[in-house]
Amino acid sequence: MNDKEMLHNAPIGVFDSGVGGLTVAREIMRQLPNERIVYFGDTARVPYGSKSPETITRYSSQIVRFLQTQQVKAIVIACNSASACALETLEEETNLPIIDVVRPGARTALETTVNGKIGVIATEATICSGIYKRYIEESGKSVSTISKACPLFVPLVEEGLWEDPVTDEIAGRYLAELIDSGIDTLILGCTHYPLIRSTVGRIMGEKVCLVNPAYETARALKQLLEKKGLESEKRPGLGTELYRFFVSDAADKFQKFANSILPYGILSAKVINIEEF
Amino acid sequence: MNDKEMLHNAPIGVFDSGVGGLTVAREIMRQLPNERIVYFGDTARVPYGSKSPETITRYSSQIVRFLQTQQVKAIVIACNSASACALETLEEETNLPIIDVVRPGARTALETTVNGKIGVIATEATICSGIYKRYIEESGKSVSTISKACPLFVPLVEEGLWEDPVTDEIAGRYLAELIDSGIDTLILGCTHYPLIRSTVGRIMGEKVCLVNPAYETARALKQLLEKKGLESEKRPGLGTELYRFFVSDAADKFQKFANSILPYGILSAKVINIEEF
Repeated sequence: MNDKEMLHNAPIGVFDSGVGGLTVAREIMRQLPNERIVYFGDTARVPYGSKSPETITRYSSQIVRFLQTQQVKAIVIACNSASACALETLEEETNLPIIDVVRPGARTALETTVNGKIGVIATEATICSGIYKRYIEESGKSVSTISKACPLFVPLVEEGLWEDPVTDEIAGRYLAELIDSGIDTLILGCTHYPLIRSTVGRIMGEKVCLVNPAYETARALKQLLEKKGLESEKRPGLGTELYRFFVSDAADKFQKFANSILPYGILSAKVINIEEF
Repeated sequence: MNDKEMLHNAPIGVFDSGVGGLTVAREIMRQLPNERIVYFGDTARVPYGSKSPETITRYSSQIVRFLQTQQVKAIVIACNSASACALETLEEETNLPIIDVVRPGARTALETTVNGKIGVIATEATICSGIYKRYIEESGKSVSTISKACPLFVPLVEEGLWEDPVTDEIAGRYLAELIDSGIDTLILGCTHYPLIRSTVGRIMGEKVCLVNPAYETARALKQLLEKKGLESEKRPGLGTELYRFFVSDAADKFQKFANSILPYGILSAKVINIEEF
């Protein structure tokens, strides 16, 4: 295999503070079936949302250095907090193409809205960071954003209650004010939320268009790889390690959650000491 | 004020990974109204449950060093994970009397049970650590423990749903197998759980005795101070800073939660850089 082939066949590095970014990895598997993936979940230091921007940036730099040891050809920041705080520093520190999980969703919401009212649901940390609001309002278009933190959605998803009367009840309470506000577009601004997409969609009703940033991020990655001529040319054969998973702690729990959402079984997730990078 | 008076009037140092330990502080306020308290909540590094024993011990040592700069006369570890991992190291590192939040509850459960079947509910991390089970079984008494992790209780409590049909529904699911097992005593093995004590009590029924480790810890502290002759002799006067609160991040959120559960309003929580200690 020559250098060019090696580069084409190199994996995509995807990282998150924990398991949430697996919804992004899942979309990459669906939309770019020829691509290899190296996923890192920082399960020892999760959650990032409550940490300072400096700390989140430092952690993200460590992770990118680790992913580079795995010869990745591009980086996907599948974590809202890291997208909000670390993108610029990471772009300075590496020459690899980088996609974050916030901007593709914000862009699609701007293209989708007709009445100019965009809703954002996310964790408290993401809402407080104001990142979606900032990206949307920087567009210069005449749009307003209505944000709502939904702190129970992540624990409900991690408990597996994706289709459950309790999740319906909680979602009904969180979403009531968004329905009243007359939005026509709603961004699922947390990587866990695609897993309760159907519950949110049912409550919001058919007239509200849901934007799934995991889907949009995979689409943006596809465009970027094509533009840079970096696509993998053929699907790796049987026996090739298509997807590899690394975590900083608690591999068993990660593996269990990953196996519940990914189309392919994960045979193992390897624990590494991320602080060494 | 002479040295002896200063020692008597010195505060109790109480710490937790976040807000949960406030239920322990609240019991100390109730049972020992003459005592001053310095509380530290490690809100930047919460949760401890998912971290390694070495990391939890290192963090706990830093906190005890900080509390010593506040001239505390005793330490209360109001955090299950730190109680499980760090107690012995802390006892080696300081001469101050130390009370943890696990052993007092385990002792009371052993004294309370008649049929020898003790239930423990806690976070996944505490259940996996096996700490309650170990303390109870080390007693040598012929008892069995039935443990159940209840991952949604902490987020439900932090969302303020202490009396809510959703909490009833979730509690009903978690507690069903404990009811079936025939326990007569149930330890609320997480510092958040006293806030949903009445829900748990209603579901378990009158025949099951609930053990509240926060209450038992305050009681053990009272006994320890009496034994060592360290009690504060009189209630500090008006204008004296009876209770002081420090956190490592997000003081506003801490303050809001603290004000919702403590009998006295918190005027402020000060952010410190705990990594300097």
